Amino acid sequence: MPSSTITDPAADRPQLAPFAVPLGDPAGIGPEIVAKSWVMREARGLPAFFAVGDMASLRAVWLGPVEQIAAPEEAASVFNRALPCLQVADAGPVVPGTPSIDGARTAFQALEVAVGLARTGSAAGIVTAPVGKEQLYGVGFTHPGQTEFVAERCGVAPHNAVMMLAGPSLKVVPVTIHIPLADVPSVLTADLIRARAVTTVKGLQRNFGIPRPRIAVAGLNPHAGEGGALGREEIEIIGPAIEALQAEGMNIRGPLAADGLFHSRARETYDAVLCMYHDQALIPLKTLHFDEGVNITLGLPIVRTSPDHGTAFGIAGTDSANPGAMMAALKMAAEAARARLTHGC
Amino acid sequence: MPSSTITDPAADRPQLAPFAVPLGDPAGIGPEIVAKSWVMREARGLPAFFAVGDMASLRAVWLGPVEQIAAPEEAASVFNRALPCLQVADAGPVVPGTPSIDGARTAFQALEVAVGLARTGSAAGIVTAPVGKEQLYGVGFTHPGQTEFVAERCGVAPHNAVMMLAGPSLKVVPVTIHIPLADVPSVLTADLIRARAVTTVKGLQRNFGIPRPRIAVAGLNPHAGEGGALGREEIEIIGPAIEALQAEGMNIRGPLAADGLFHSRARETYDAVLCMYHDQALIPLKTLHFDEGVNITLGLPIVRTSPDHGTAFGIAGTDSANPGAMMAALKMAAEAARARLTHGC
Repeated sequence: MPSSTITDPAADRPQLAPFAVPLGDPAGIGPEIVAKSWVMREARGLPAFFAVGDMASLRAVWLGPVEQIAAPEEAASVFNRALPCLQVADAGPVVPGTPSIDGARTAFQALEVAVGLARTGSAAGIVTAPVGKEQLYGVGFTHPGQTEFVAERCGVAPHNAVMMLAGPSLKVVPVTIHIPLADVPSVLTADLIRARAVTTVKGLQRNFGIPRPRIAVAGLNPHAGEGGALGREEIEIIGPAIEALQAEGMNIRGPLAADGLFHSRARETYDAVLCMYHDQALIPLKTLHFDEGVNITLGLPIVRTSPDHGTAFGIAGTDSANPGAMMAALKMAAEAARARLTHGC
Repeated sequence: MPSSTITDPAADRPQLAPFAVPLGDPAGIGPEIVAKSWVMREARGLPAFFAVGDMASLRAVWLGPVEQIAAPEEAASVFNRALPCLQVADAGPVVPGTPSIDGARTAFQALEVAVGLARTGSAAGIVTAPVGKEQLYGVGFTHPGQTEFVAERCGVAPHNAVMMLAGPSLKVVPVTIHIPLADVPSVLTADLIRARAVTTVKGLQRNFGIPRPRIAVAGLNPHAGEGGALGREEIEIIGPAIEALQAEGMNIRGPLAADGLFHSRARETYDAVLCMYHDQALIPLKTLHFDEGVNITLGLPIVRTSPDHGTAFGIAGTDSANPGAMMAALKMAAEAARARLTHGC
């Protein structure tokens, strides 16, 4: 029987190692959304994964089965009957909603262990639950966020690790991110746009298996500057960057008026949008996909995704956290890992 | 029989004069979407209206019934059998997609006539089709857009005529509009935010009959500045403006992170969002309601709406223009006119 007639699609899929899921701040919603995702593992077709952190933070918010594992290799056999957990530290007494120094230290260690496991291939990638940055800064964490930390541990310069936000119908990459809006025009350069575009194209090829990604580029100003009448960055910076990339053969177009770029028909014309600033990217993404937005880091040797939301300390422990984005992050991590195996890069 | 038992809801409605619909640039999609709206008048429950412009621009793109009227008073009886048209000028030969000086002059005159009819009560309001600004500038039009022209003819200072963009599930008001993004931080002042908020609240009361509107205010910076770490406009300008308005009893809150403001649950918590710049308002509106966005001018003595799109010269004459936004603009104008009659202001 030729392989094309095999009816079980899973049989065609390459086998993946389980994913490492550092639980983030033990007092945030991380443990709850990881446990809820495990419950939904079959219904949602999630890949095998194991928690990395403190068992107690799971037990504090969940009565379901948890099993401590000594090594990632045990995760696959445990995963069907219980949520496997690799214990990295004792977070002390866990009070959901009330972050602590011990909790932050545990989150930090869990992240570090998870990255190491992905680097060595014991995990197929990492799917990180949210951390409290303020808390992390209190225990010696010096990076702006988890992304930069992961990049450094992977030997990648921070500016080459690029945040893509992805939902079912939209992928966006902000060229500038966590800076005041007033600083955006002066930070934008053709070099920066070029670097983000190149990483985006490679990232779409490696993680999503898109051979020749179509990139749309948003303008900075209203109506993309309206020919210079409403700002000149399109003419002086963004346009030339796009033309240079087109000349090199990239399938990229713009600058386009940002307000006309995100409705359903427009979204069919590209694979990702390069946006000039944080809210230009995050407003459409969260408007469309608030409960299923995934942050995937492009430019890393490992697969790394995370739900696009924070610790939500305010609702931690109330059983009201929505695991949608965590489940989407797990599914996207599996797709990215399979794409890398299939397309081999 | 008490009036509350009357089953025909239309019987409860105050009778409205017909709406004046200046056709905009004769070479744009205005004539086509106005004609298509007339075809759908019953199916969509549109109010009676009459075109203002040149009959020839309608005939150039449409084979349906058009009847010239000599005065607005004739429109109501004609409306059932034909699209009434008040001829204001001869636009010369109309070539869809190719704007002309005569066409621009006709668009200008149609707008002027329509405003006059609404001012005198012969029309219940105006619903303006799109004009080509470049073309208008060529025939002596000196205003930035139709809104400012209408405001002047109504004796309203241009900065007191406020553009609200409205779709079925979202209403937004940009505090700054057609300026380069780099200029936004320096143009934003507490006084400007206050003026826009006051006009927005009054506009929601008058045009939508909302007695105590709930206003959400977006921050300027990512994460609404994150306590000052990502910009200080929220602390120094936006926050104080909001507090002052709250102290006066306005139901207003913010500054809120813009990216979390527009998903479906968030939209249930307010009646309108005050946005700091063009794309912050227009991106979510057009992402959600690209084919049904309405521009309604607040702060005018007359009702004025328009579809939130341009002349689309590129598709004019191809019968592919979507009348959705024009129909939405007509319906919203009727609602606004009824609200004004009912609530009397």
